[in-house]
Amino acid sequence: MAFALTLSELARWIDGDIVRGGLDLSLTGMASLSEASPGDVSFLGNEKYHGQFLETKASAVIVGRGVTDGPDSTALIAVDNPTLAFSVVVRHFAQAAAAFTPGVHPSAFVDPEAALDPATVRVHPGAVVMAGAKVGDGCEIGPNAVIGENAVLGRDCRVMANAIVRERCVLGDRVILQPGCVIGSDGYGYEFSDGRHVKIDQVGIVEIAADVEIGANTTIDRARFGRTVIGEGTKVDNLVQIAHNVVIGKHCLIVSQVGISGSTRIGDHVTLAGQVGVVGHVEICDRVTLAARTGVPSSITEPGIYAGRRAKPFKEDMKIQALIHRLPKLVERIKALEDKAAGETASP
Amino acid sequence: MAFALTLSELARWIDGDIVRGGLDLSLTGMASLSEASPGDVSFLGNEKYHGQFLETKASAVIVGRGVTDGPDSTALIAVDNPTLAFSVVVRHFAQAAAAFTPGVHPSAFVDPEAALDPATVRVHPGAVVMAGAKVGDGCEIGPNAVIGENAVLGRDCRVMANAIVRERCVLGDRVILQPGCVIGSDGYGYEFSDGRHVKIDQVGIVEIAADVEIGANTTIDRARFGRTVIGEGTKVDNLVQIAHNVVIGKHCLIVSQVGISGSTRIGDHVTLAGQVGVVGHVEICDRVTLAARTGVPSSITEPGIYAGRRAKPFKEDMKIQALIHRLPKLVERIKALEDKAAGETASP
Amino acid sequence: MAFALTLSELARWIDGDIVRGGLDLSLTGMASLSEASPGDVSFLGNEKYHGQFLETKASAVIVGRGVTDGPDSTALIAVDNPTLAFSVVVRHFAQAAAAFTPGVHPSAFVDPEAALDPATVRVHPGAVVMAGAKVGDGCEIGPNAVIGENAVLGRDCRVMANAIVRERCVLGDRVILQPGCVIGSDGYGYEFSDGRHVKIDQVGIVEIAADVEIGANTTIDRARFGRTVIGEGTKVDNLVQIAHNVVIGKHCLIVSQVGISGSTRIGDHVTLAGQVGVVGHVEICDRVTLAARTGVPSSITEPGIYAGRRAKPFKEDMKIQALIHRLPKLVERIKALEDKAAGETASP
Repeated sequence: MAFALTLSELARWIDGDIVRGGLDLSLTGMASLSEASPGDVSFLGNEKYHGQFLETKASAVIVGRGVTDGPDSTALIAVDNPTLAFSVVVRHFAQAAAAFTPGVHPSAFVDPEAALDPATVRVHPGAVVMAGAKVGDGCEIGPNAVIGENAVLGRDCRVMANAIVRERCVLGDRVILQPGCVIGSDGYGYEFSDGRHVKIDQVGIVEIAADVEIGANTTIDRARFGRTVIGEGTKVDNLVQIAHNVVIGKHCLIVSQVGISGSTRIGDHVTLAGQVGVVGHVEICDRVTLAARTGVPSSITEPGIYAGRRAKPFKEDMKIQALIHRLPKLVERIKALEDKAAGETASP
Repeated sequence: MAFALTLSELARWIDGDIVRGGLDLSLTGMASLSEASPGDVSFLGNEKYHGQFLETKASAVIVGRGVTDGPDSTALIAVDNPTLAFSVVVRHFAQAAAAFTPGVHPSAFVDPEAALDPATVRVHPGAVVMAGAKVGDGCEIGPNAVIGENAVLGRDCRVMANAIVRERCVLGDRVILQPGCVIGSDGYGYEFSDGRHVKIDQVGIVEIAADVEIGANTTIDRARFGRTVIGEGTKVDNLVQIAHNVVIGKHCLIVSQVGISGSTRIGDHVTLAGQVGVVGHVEICDRVTLAARTGVPSSITEPGIYAGRRAKPFKEDMKIQALIHRLPKLVERIKALEDKAAGETASP
Repeated sequence: MAFALTLSELARWIDGDIVRGGLDLSLTGMASLSEASPGDVSFLGNEKYHGQFLETKASAVIVGRGVTDGPDSTALIAVDNPTLAFSVVVRHFAQAAAAFTPGVHPSAFVDPEAALDPATVRVHPGAVVMAGAKVGDGCEIGPNAVIGENAVLGRDCRVMANAIVRERCVLGDRVILQPGCVIGSDGYGYEFSDGRHVKIDQVGIVEIAADVEIGANTTIDRARFGRTVIGEGTKVDNLVQIAHNVVIGKHCLIVSQVGISGSTRIGDHVTLAGQVGVVGHVEICDRVTLAARTGVPSSITEPGIYAGRRAKPFKEDMKIQALIHRLPKLVERIKALEDKAAGETASP
């Protein structure tokens, strides 16, 4: 990695005190304590990793105030919060890795009728931007990504390799699309007529607000007409399915492999953990958390934590799960009662 | 959107009566009642939306016979079935949006040994059609889509952006592949030998019949040898996994995130709702419906509706689910019997 | 299919005896007994297919020693193990179909700063290889696939159509990436601050060891920092999600639609069947098998087979499932005890 730092520069940036090590020590990368090599910065953010700290090969470690041990050859910088301080280091090297150079690569295709400023936008090899698309300043369109006709991207969006924004869909500012995700596939809508399923045209769009991130190979269907909406600041993980006309609020977390069926509405600050499934045409209110794999067959109108094959309050589900596991003992107790009853009937 | 309509044209097309509004009113788009802007047509298909109707900003609304209220400035056309009539409008504007112009884009690559008539087929930027592929008249190959060697596409297929048809796979007429789906990936087959899994070559194909639609990022594996088959008119949603040598019948609905394991056979008019999982080497007969998330561990030989972690008739599963939720009360009843029995033993 | 074989060549290759048929019979393809056409070789590996054998249209069938019936016009070759012998045939025709010709297609883009020998590597149309990438000898980069900056591929890797290896990720020798899979998407990591989720940079990599295969549209996230690891010989099916910092051991089978959450560690020779879900930050020891759809909420420290919504030993789960299905009868038994108790209280 490029962008080497000296120990003194690093200490200044993170407002730390050099406990040990030369000011001019050059730091060229970062790693966890157990994976670090000479040249790397690491950090001790949790005392349970103290053993790894004692054996690290990192050239410098960011530690909490008062830590003074570790390998003699390893420089130490003390701060109040090593984890937070290390995030500054991460950001530094990450930016170094992803230096942004605007311009349209010759092997990309940008339709002459697209609106895109090559002085501020980077279009990678093989990417396609179709007629009528508007791409905001500072956007990066990854290799072999596709921006469809009349799609609109705000400023500073990152569309990664092979991601797709289909025609007329709209992205706000700073939206990140991980590789292979599909924005605006047709909704799954058919009418059954004469023994066949006849396709209902899906002519709406997907509208994604500012600061949303969409995971790799996730799919978001366009509305029948009108809009499928992902609210501001919501983060969607990989391989999630969001069906047509779904509306998701602000600052939600939608974890991997969740499926949300058509026309369902989800409030703000909602968390759906991995593999949750939600049926269509229901509502989930603000500040609901669904445990992994919860099934949601009907609307949820009270904030709280829910779980289970048919979502119920978390504690209630835990109780029922415990009882299920005690079923063998319950059967024994019934048997004992029956034996006793039979004895009473027989003996007297 | 292009293709403006006048109110009188619209009324004629949908066989409706103009209740209110000027014959020359120009309609340029469509939307739901709550989302419509001036220029849009909308419809009142269900009385529960009457409140939205009273406040709509649409320029014209298709209503049922007898409806005469709504905003004064909104034109009304009365028909027998507003929902059906509106589908004509949708089709009109959708076709306008997706006007088809044949030709191979200069940035696409069509192998000289592929059979494809550029006078009737549209190949979008960045698409790749490999040697020996045959692409039927009227097909559209989306941006960065890939048609593999010797693959065969019928007439009027739509292969959307980044969708993939691997070598030798066969598509019937009017097949639609949503973005990012993969037709013909290798089946998941290994032999375990000397502590290692050795790949078994997967040299069969996928064969997709006419009028099938495959969802975004869905994967369908090629057969070990022979064919994985999707029957005529079947509609597959997003992120579905269909393993090697599976055979699916005609006019089925396979909803999002379903997984079907290898060599399973599914009949005609079967519906698998979201996140269903079916093991390998079983059969599901015609006209079976599986509720969302049902697990299928063995063959199903009777038509009907099934549900549950291990599929059973829907009503039976409902009954068991209800009993599970009553477990805490059952435990209380057992406890009461025990107390009574203990009292009898102790007291007399 | 090309690479026709004569019956005598085939018999020699598989060390078989010609029971019936002319030495010069030309065989041009292969198929199962029921699907074979004239020109095809087939095999009878299991007596339950004997009925299909009697009606096959194959030109030649590989059979076990002693089999002499079947259609008169069908040649027979007898061997000790027909299934094994047939795999030789499969390999022959598969290689014929996939003849490898090195070279970079003119419509591909290989950055001048990438290290790649066009005399041994095949780069298909539309593929992109970014600056600093190293592609080992004998690799095949499929149509519209993307190899990111500074990614490293060992020898003889096959990266299929539209598959993506993001920057700095590392693949060992003979790794196979099925179409559309994503290696190195950002991990799903955010800090919650002032009511918003703030992205934590994900600057680590994915490291995939030798002889691994990754399924179509599967996603593997890069580490926060450090590495997400897939061990030697492990085979991952389609649509699997592997989160950041996960470490999977050697020779595992990870079946379709499995989800593994962040920082979880999985040992060697572990099998996760379809749709299994594993929470983050747990360990699964060597030689564990999880039945389809098992949920894993905590570490598993003993080898064995597990199942259930919350993983428990397979037999225990089976017992509890059986009891759940007997709940209606348990309720009847409790009711009978209650009636009897009521009668005793009432009658005496």
